Amino acid sequence: MIPPRRSRTIRIRDLAVGGEAPIAVQSMAATPTRDIEATVRQVELLEAAGADLVRIAVDSEADVEALAIVRGRTRALLSVDLQENYRLAATVAPLVDKIRYNPGHLHHHEKSKPVREKVAMIVGAAREHGLALRIGVNAGSVAPEYKDRFGAEGVEAIVRSALDHCAMVDELGFTDYVVSIKDSDPRLVVDANVAFAEARPDVPLHLGVTEAGMPPDGVIKTRIAFEQLLSRGIGDTLRVSLTVPFDDKGQEIEVGRAILADVEAGRFRSVPPNFFDGLNIIACPSCSRVENTRFIDLAQEVKEVTAYAEDHDFTIAVMGCRVNGPGETDDADLGLWCGPNHVNLKRGEESVGTYTYDEILPKLREELDRLIAKS
Amino acid sequence: MIPPRRSRTIRIRDLAVGGEAPIAVQSMAATPTRDIEATVRQVELLEAAGADLVRIAVDSEADVEALAIVRGRTRALLSVDLQENYRLAATVAPLVDKIRYNPGHLHHHEKSKPVREKVAMIVGAAREHGLALRIGVNAGSVAPEYKDRFGAEGVEAIVRSALDHCAMVDELGFTDYVVSIKDSDPRLVVDANVAFAEARPDVPLHLGVTEAGMPPDGVIKTRIAFEQLLSRGIGDTLRVSLTVPFDDKGQEIEVGRAILADVEAGRFRSVPPNFFDGLNIIACPSCSRVENTRFIDLAQEVKEVTAYAEDHDFTIAVMGCRVNGPGETDDADLGLWCGPNHVNLKRGEESVGTYTYDEILPKLREELDRLIAKS
Repeated sequence: MIPPRRSRTIRIRDLAVGGEAPIAVQSMAATPTRDIEATVRQVELLEAAGADLVRIAVDSEADVEALAIVRGRTRALLSVDLQENYRLAATVAPLVDKIRYNPGHLHHHEKSKPVREKVAMIVGAAREHGLALRIGVNAGSVAPEYKDRFGAEGVEAIVRSALDHCAMVDELGFTDYVVSIKDSDPRLVVDANVAFAEARPDVPLHLGVTEAGMPPDGVIKTRIAFEQLLSRGIGDTLRVSLTVPFDDKGQEIEVGRAILADVEAGRFRSVPPNFFDGLNIIACPSCSRVENTRFIDLAQEVKEVTAYAEDHDFTIAVMGCRVNGPGETDDADLGLWCGPNHVNLKRGEESVGTYTYDEILPKLREELDRLIAKS
Repeated sequence: MIPPRRSRTIRIRDLAVGGEAPIAVQSMAATPTRDIEATVRQVELLEAAGADLVRIAVDSEADVEALAIVRGRTRALLSVDLQENYRLAATVAPLVDKIRYNPGHLHHHEKSKPVREKVAMIVGAAREHGLALRIGVNAGSVAPEYKDRFGAEGVEAIVRSALDHCAMVDELGFTDYVVSIKDSDPRLVVDANVAFAEARPDVPLHLGVTEAGMPPDGVIKTRIAFEQLLSRGIGDTLRVSLTVPFDDKGQEIEVGRAILADVEAGRFRSVPPNFFDGLNIIACPSCSRVENTRFIDLAQEVKEVTAYAEDHDFTIAVMGCRVNGPGETDDADLGLWCGPNHVNLKRGEESVGTYTYDEILPKLREELDRLIAKS
């Protein structure tokens, strides 16, 4: 049930991501990197849970030294997370399979150096060691100039930041990269990733709801975003973020795999965030009282011809019979109840008229247009 | 994951419903009852899909005659749906296993006869033939006097109507009944059934979202209501209503069974309708940058001590480190970011102060109270 993805396939060593490759599930070690024993155990725990890739944060030379030892003790694919410390890129590159940098953190050091040069430095390190990159944009740390230019509300700043960094990396002739655009609000994660994927369908996307928080809310938030995106063919690798102790981090992988399996099987279950907004079409399930079997088609046609009004908070009721039809359309803004040859059209409790099955849809649109004009 | 249900167990012939009995899944024939071949095929189709019970509408003597023939050709448990034609109760009772009547339709005929007498007539027919009953209240056809007394908004009219009918049936010494309270809005279905179950935990409940409409919206609406109710231990039998052609009616049973299996397995997936309202706690997933492992407990404690404010639309961010903490708390109404020994408390972008892990929670409550007082 996941539509074909339009992204290109990139490689993180032997792991293919994007295009027709299976959607990879990853997570991040929560242990202090310098605690080598704990970090090795954490990597093993995530691998055992089914992680395709494990990210490790590196913020200092001491972290790099620890990472070198961890690297020697695991065969897991490792990604290094460089936030403010992108200058460590060259040092960590020989130790890992992928580098994540945050475009919003490149201004913190060497302020006079152009961002483009900093990106070139990271790309150079990745290229030299055959690594993949992630351009990891986060709404909570978007570069100040993007906030100034595009505003702090909405998703434009984060999407533009990601697009500009793609252009920079493209210009350097580097293609083995993925992009992530994260927010703690799943609705913004959906909007941002949809907008990005429209502009750059070729770039593989790493999905995540950042700071989703504790289960169960954190799981629900993640599920909302991932279901909406995966079912549109958007998303090539996933990371679930849950506020849980070290020893429970396997849950992030399990939740990611469960969501993936559900969407693949068409078990698309979370409620779209704006489900109760906009046009609401209620329709009876039909029973033996239906006097014209065109009723089922009519319900579908009503949905189609009224789709243009989907943002208006009206209810349209389509009922199949004279037993329940007259009463159960009273509460709707517009109601249709079907007889053997005619359909009765109502506006609230008031009758508008009786029309043939061929006449009813244009009449319904007229009434709907009138409601919209008045609203 | 379904909590023990408090309802009593009733019997519909050999089918136990309520208490510890498995939750039964049922549906309704959509074919014209008088089309005997089509109706027999419809019953067989629903049975094959796993229906525990099949409902058939009967509105006329001709329908009764057809039902008699259908009865002879199937061993399925049959319920008869009497809407306005409750006077057929005695005639159909020998042919079926259960009668559904609608309290909102009893005023249509013999207006001078008290409702109590009409109920006694239906109960008498059920008792004589060893049938079960369903008191089936529907928001779209609630009895006018209940609408007048309790208003058309909210769920009081439908809940009171159901409770009064239970009292009437109880007084007649009849206990083999279930109740349903349906609306096309799943949020009202939840509210009504929660209110009813509080008042009458002993009465088995038949759950349904009426006129849910076409898939996928109809499935989503049903899932919202059923997940919310089943996970509270409310609901003893289910009917999914979808606007689909005759031949696809098996889908109603399949969807019902899938929701049931999911909730039983703890796969509680639909988003509670008000998920995005009220207090929003965002918390980072923790990573190696966390300098004090008390962070995870703190996130949990923040959730607990702020629970009293759950109806207020504030965001509280709890971040584990100095790299992401200062920036990613800016957009929250209140932010906490954790250092090795102290927690930094913020109000939006402004710093409130730095507190020990023991001091922070009371300080947070003070700030939250201040926000509430101002809101």
